[in-house]
Amino acid sequence: MKSIDLNADLGEGFGVWRMGDDEAMMSIVSSANIACGFHAGDPLVMSRTVELALSHNVAIGAHPGYDDLRGFGRTPQPWVAPNQLAADLQYQIGALRAIARANGTKVRYIKLHGALANLASTTDLWAKICVEAIVGTAPSLPLLVMGDCHMEQQAQRLGLPTFSEFYADRAYDNEGQLLPRNQQGAVILDPNIAADRVLRLLETGVVSTAHGAELQMKPHSICVHGDHPTAVQMAQTIRDRLEKAGVKIEKFAL
Amino acid sequence: MKSIDLNADLGEGFGVWRMGDDEAMMSIVSSANIACGFHAGDPLVMSRTVELALSHNVAIGAHPGYDDLRGFGRTPQPWVAPNQLAADLQYQIGALRAIARANGTKVRYIKLHGALANLASTTDLWAKICVEAIVGTAPSLPLLVMGDCHMEQQAQRLGLPTFSEFYADRAYDNEGQLLPRNQQGAVILDPNIAADRVLRLLETGVVSTAHGAELQMKPHSICVHGDHPTAVQMAQTIRDRLEKAGVKIEKFAL
Amino acid sequence: MKSIDLNADLGEGFGVWRMGDDEAMMSIVSSANIACGFHAGDPLVMSRTVELALSHNVAIGAHPGYDDLRGFGRTPQPWVAPNQLAADLQYQIGALRAIARANGTKVRYIKLHGALANLASTTDLWAKICVEAIVGTAPSLPLLVMGDCHMEQQAQRLGLPTFSEFYADRAYDNEGQLLPRNQQGAVILDPNIAADRVLRLLETGVVSTAHGAELQMKPHSICVHGDHPTAVQMAQTIRDRLEKAGVKIEKFAL
Amino acid sequence: MKSIDLNADLGEGFGVWRMGDDEAMMSIVSSANIACGFHAGDPLVMSRTVELALSHNVAIGAHPGYDDLRGFGRTPQPWVAPNQLAADLQYQIGALRAIARANGTKVRYIKLHGALANLASTTDLWAKICVEAIVGTAPSLPLLVMGDCHMEQQAQRLGLPTFSEFYADRAYDNEGQLLPRNQQGAVILDPNIAADRVLRLLETGVVSTAHGAELQMKPHSICVHGDHPTAVQMAQTIRDRLEKAGVKIEKFAL
Repeated sequence: MKSIDLNADLGEGFGVWRMGDDEAMMSIVSSANIACGFHAGDPLVMSRTVELALSHNVAIGAHPGYDDLRGFGRTPQPWVAPNQLAADLQYQIGALRAIARANGTKVRYIKLHGALANLASTTDLWAKICVEAIVGTAPSLPLLVMGDCHMEQQAQRLGLPTFSEFYADRAYDNEGQLLPRNQQGAVILDPNIAADRVLRLLETGVVSTAHGAELQMKPHSICVHGDHPTAVQMAQTIRDRLEKAGVKIEKFAL
Repeated sequence: MKSIDLNADLGEGFGVWRMGDDEAMMSIVSSANIACGFHAGDPLVMSRTVELALSHNVAIGAHPGYDDLRGFGRTPQPWVAPNQLAADLQYQIGALRAIARANGTKVRYIKLHGALANLASTTDLWAKICVEAIVGTAPSLPLLVMGDCHMEQQAQRLGLPTFSEFYADRAYDNEGQLLPRNQQGAVILDPNIAADRVLRLLETGVVSTAHGAELQMKPHSICVHGDHPTAVQMAQTIRDRLEKAGVKIEKFAL
Repeated sequence: MKSIDLNADLGEGFGVWRMGDDEAMMSIVSSANIACGFHAGDPLVMSRTVELALSHNVAIGAHPGYDDLRGFGRTPQPWVAPNQLAADLQYQIGALRAIARANGTKVRYIKLHGALANLASTTDLWAKICVEAIVGTAPSLPLLVMGDCHMEQQAQRLGLPTFSEFYADRAYDNEGQLLPRNQQGAVILDPNIAADRVLRLLETGVVSTAHGAELQMKPHSICVHGDHPTAVQMAQTIRDRLEKAGVKIEKFAL
Repeated sequence: MKSIDLNADLGEGFGVWRMGDDEAMMSIVSSANIACGFHAGDPLVMSRTVELALSHNVAIGAHPGYDDLRGFGRTPQPWVAPNQLAADLQYQIGALRAIARANGTKVRYIKLHGALANLASTTDLWAKICVEAIVGTAPSLPLLVMGDCHMEQQAQRLGLPTFSEFYADRAYDNEGQLLPRNQQGAVILDPNIAADRVLRLLETGVVSTAHGAELQMKPHSICVHGDHPTAVQMAQTIRDRLEKAGVKIEKFAL
């Protein structure tokens, strides 16, 4: 029987503000990418999200991003100094690890967030800066990345294990990159169409791009979003359809 | 030959702003209490301060405080929720540990900062909250505390080792508490008077209070401040006088 | 025909985070207390909220609070320095006035938020600090306050006009203070019971306290909350019931 | 007798941190560009700086910058949304105006800070966004700008008065732009060489560029920096040399 991981970005509140329905999502996914306080999350939100993951037997991933609370880490910051970014990443990862430990559990993997993830996936320079920063402080934590990207290559060079993910609700271009959100058709809103794509990918190893080509992919995890109005329904539909097709939802961790 | 530790609060800059002369102080002290980003410090400042400590063979302590950048952690916050404070402490400690690890070293101890240190030293409730938060994430890191305070008692209860410190340049009251800064004579400005007190304490185990009594103390470390205009001269004088008297300056760590 | 103002705290998002349904509330209330960036709101949120108020012909009030984004301005801060609090108030008020002006409108009144409002209502010292700070920078803007409180007295002393408000969905004690939220019955959840109280107050000038006494009040405005799950329904019910009883909803501004 | 304005960036502390010697600089300059809390400054620092300016009869300018406390407003942010930047500018300007008013004085002009000033000087798009934001909330406040730049052109288009400045201690390229700080010779450290350039410019209207050309300029103000170790000496030397040559130091304000 086949199995696959389902991951989502959770713990994205701050102070009194909430983002999405973490409780509902935790009962659907097998891995939670938890914000670390720089683009979202704060220590108490992180602590509660870790507890919630633990109670649902969901794997905990650190989800560090740019120091950009107002912009939710979605503002590109190519001018940030490399040593500042490296320290910011280490700081965030260590912070979540300490909170996980205080709750009797551990961080299992790392996934970069937002504009930082985009930059590090698509440029070798920033992939190198990020992977070197991570390997310095967490030399055995796997990275969850887009398949076939610069992060994957740099991780392999430095001996960090990687797992790759497929975005269930996002269209891809012919180079295997996500279509930018502002392009038509970039975001797939129909849960059944998203589920169809995932099932076809798991059965055939192939996904159709927005421009009509076919891409080969072999992901370890399916990413579903937690912050859309219909996020819970989307995630639940994908999980139900996968399980009905005999695919087990199971965390990927080593 | 006797030995004693000298500690100072360092890494208290933020962004482009600096506080005191960390480079000079690192060549004098044996232990550095490094701010963790909530009342001072930021990841890059922390990383540079860790490097500086390492290059001077100075022990690294985590120096967490209230989430209060504008107030430098000196504003009392008795209304903060205990679970928020606990998460804030864990977050800060983990962040510094991760940065220390990335620099090939380790955090050796924890010392609370500012208004939080005052509250936790003098009230059993907050001492308990702080020690429980710390022991949850760092069960073997010693605490550097005022001797004979609630933090020490709670640490003993939970099995955390403690080391105690004496403030070279601050007057004590008859209960062994620091005289508040706004009272006359609270801060000792003459380096030689401060050095005299330290030497007498090391030789006799006794210090005179501001109100004429004699206190018994047996500190493991002498705290000198790094942020006064005359801080470097004060610290250097104390170190010189101690060494001339045959006392070796040596970190206290386990 | 009688008339009364309906006010609500709006513009309480930050960055990507939202709080309540500002669009729906703006079509119900006649006055909007707009957060100024210290406990909630940011310049862009403020600008959008001002635009929304303008398009609904709703009066704009500045709603400054403590510098406490994580705590939403609900954490008491009695240790903040008076001159810092004064500058913080002036800063926030000026910021909103500038944004209102850029949108072709004006701030019509000031209402303090959260823990600051509580402290300034109930202590003469902080009422004086707040009113003096406000009168220094906005000598003719009226204050919206609890009736018969220290803010009202200090405003009268310094010549600032005041308007008073009644909380539709909160129980009062015999001294005319709000029952703390953590006490049973403090928050009224049934829209019709809240509407009944408002109508009785407008007709008779009397409201029953939680402890069985009767208070005389003559408010200029009814405060409804915008951040509860049932806030819109509560506010709409009160408005509908008032209008059905022949009371016109009308802003109080000079 | 000729006269010229001397301006410097002041009030660049934050919380307990200080930057430069504001007290000394206030006795030398005639105009102070005061940080507004987004890249430096906080309400209390702003209030104290306004008081200091007032006591030295120095003109107060608003010095808004990017929302970038950690980077001191020196990080380019070309991805910030135009409506967010516009609101940020209005917010900062209004905040300082309110604090000035509370101190019985007024903001006399606006000068952009750091990376924002660079971007707005050199690109028409951002100059337009900034000038439109400013004119919306402060339609009669003059701008202090680099001569012959996009900010000047956009200000003229929208009817905002401008004054231009010359950087005493920075080398220019042949296009009249400042040589980037990381290029050799970009920063002039010798106070007498800087004073010579200023005097020659005032006498002949000409300044030599770093690449050997001669530029025509007719500035209304000379900018001296307040944050270098030798800033006070530099500023004092320029003032002394100017006065000895019969040039009066006088604010430019309308």
